[in-house]
Amino acid sequence: MAVYTDVSDEDVSQFVADYDIGDVLSCKGIAEGVENSNFMLTTDQGAFILTLYEKRVDPKDLPFFIGLMEHLAKNGIPSPTPVHARDGEALRTLCDKPAAIVTFLPGLWPKRATSEHCRELGEGLARMHVAGSTFEMSRPNGLSVDAWRPLLESSGKDATNGVSAGLYDMLSDELTYLEEHWPAGLPSGAIHADLFPDNVFFRDGHLSGLIDFYFACTDAFAYDLGICLNAWCFEQDGSFNITKARRMLATYRVERGFSQEELDALPILARGAAIRFLLTRLYDWLNTPEGALVVPKDPMEYVHKLRFHQGVKSVGDYGLD
Amino acid sequence: MAVYTDVSDEDVSQFVADYDIGDVLSCKGIAEGVENSNFMLTTDQGAFILTLYEKRVDPKDLPFFIGLMEHLAKNGIPSPTPVHARDGEALRTLCDKPAAIVTFLPGLWPKRATSEHCRELGEGLARMHVAGSTFEMSRPNGLSVDAWRPLLESSGKDATNGVSAGLYDMLSDELTYLEEHWPAGLPSGAIHADLFPDNVFFRDGHLSGLIDFYFACTDAFAYDLGICLNAWCFEQDGSFNITKARRMLATYRVERGFSQEELDALPILARGAAIRFLLTRLYDWLNTPEGALVVPKDPMEYVHKLRFHQGVKSVGDYGLD
Repeated sequence: MAVYTDVSDEDVSQFVADYDIGDVLSCKGIAEGVENSNFMLTTDQGAFILTLYEKRVDPKDLPFFIGLMEHLAKNGIPSPTPVHARDGEALRTLCDKPAAIVTFLPGLWPKRATSEHCRELGEGLARMHVAGSTFEMSRPNGLSVDAWRPLLESSGKDATNGVSAGLYDMLSDELTYLEEHWPAGLPSGAIHADLFPDNVFFRDGHLSGLIDFYFACTDAFAYDLGICLNAWCFEQDGSFNITKARRMLATYRVERGFSQEELDALPILARGAAIRFLLTRLYDWLNTPEGALVVPKDPMEYVHKLRFHQGVKSVGDYGLD
Repeated sequence: MAVYTDVSDEDVSQFVADYDIGDVLSCKGIAEGVENSNFMLTTDQGAFILTLYEKRVDPKDLPFFIGLMEHLAKNGIPSPTPVHARDGEALRTLCDKPAAIVTFLPGLWPKRATSEHCRELGEGLARMHVAGSTFEMSRPNGLSVDAWRPLLESSGKDATNGVSAGLYDMLSDELTYLEEHWPAGLPSGAIHADLFPDNVFFRDGHLSGLIDFYFACTDAFAYDLGICLNAWCFEQDGSFNITKARRMLATYRVERGFSQEELDALPILARGAAIRFLLTRLYDWLNTPEGALVVPKDPMEYVHKLRFHQGVKSVGDYGLD
């Protein structure tokens, strides 16, 4: 939970005065969120989210994120719509930090994802990919295969083995495999790249919002599915739930068909997705000062997920015919 | 900033289903607040605050707090109105903790209080005291003069002197004075007892809400003013702003006249209020584990305030004729 920047009543009132969204009724820091400071902003015209972009976000990436949200919202995806100030700009400055106001999306994110949620997710993700395929900006995925070995080295061999005996060599061997076999030329476009349950809202059982596009980038659509297989289809006890995976992939396919190359690549993409989150969690686990506001997540969860995907023979193991 | 209890989407939806306030649209943990977990709850019928009462609140005090808010709201004070579930109860249980839903109040609290804010505050506080005087429940002030010496002792002599050389003896001498001279028999009723700027909302320059009644109790009305003199009338540099005090007291007096005894007692009440916050901050300063979610406040701010009030000769030093 985190709000990193104190925004005073005067700051927020002055900031909002440059928009045509009415007078501020309230502005409350939201406890969720790790990278940025988020505020629930209500005016006499409605509810909004005010985000201040903190140091972990590169300001030069912000036009891509803001532009993508705008493009998706215009194309019928339930994503936050950036609000433009009267000067035409959606990306502005508050308390000396980049800041934006986006529309508020109703819904709750599921603490326990069910196969019904996964069915909705597959459909929503495919629609997002189709809508995003006409978005003209691009942003390389800075956390893809080329970034992983430097990330492992920045955690270090001894520290990594300190988390779990032999972990460094296992990861290093896996990276060698992924570097040699990572697929190229798959159908690509704007992907979310961080579509965990807390970024997906539901209302009355239906997907009502996709949020937090601050890892979005241009990459293989199927890699987004690899991420979702990891984030949505494992149970608390570590077991893989093939029903969830099948429903997610099956509804995805209705909205956007898979090529054979994508189906063949899914297991390795899922391995890559597992190691991507494993490596950032490992780094945060080793480098978060004790007692920090944000409690780091245990990287071992993703070691188990990686081992599962290493054992996958074909997409059939994910429930797809 | 703090949300101590994870409330899942299923928990909150089930909880709200017992009320007649519509369907949940969203529920977001609020970063502000120290004692309890607060959530901004929106339904298709409006905005609410959901509070889970954590371990620092004694459950047996909750009927007083809830009852007082309800009484004040019914009597025209802009305070949160507890919402009753269909079973008639406003105080219920969520995630095994006492929980209540109250109406959402618009407004922003002032980061930098001006004399205009103090003028509004005096008027609002007096109206609250008048409205609260017909509230029939009572709750002793558990943080008044009898509680202060045990609080000082629980911090300990050595630790207290470790914060500032000679601090223990200074506080002990002050407590001896306060214990001997603490006034009795002043006009009393329900007081807020924690009316710091973050508990007072303003909109368009006018007071729009009084919140956080979880220290409210039955005590001398003028003690609430002593607290507000400390909380609102000192500048960042530690200097006392007599204009702010005068405007606060003058508008208070228009709504509720002072007796001579109250005027005479104001300096000692302000000393007591200073030491009350000094002692709890001192204790928290010494006992908050490093890196806790809530950063303790420096007790020395209140040492300086206490010294100011010790030098006050009469209520004239607070700007009142």
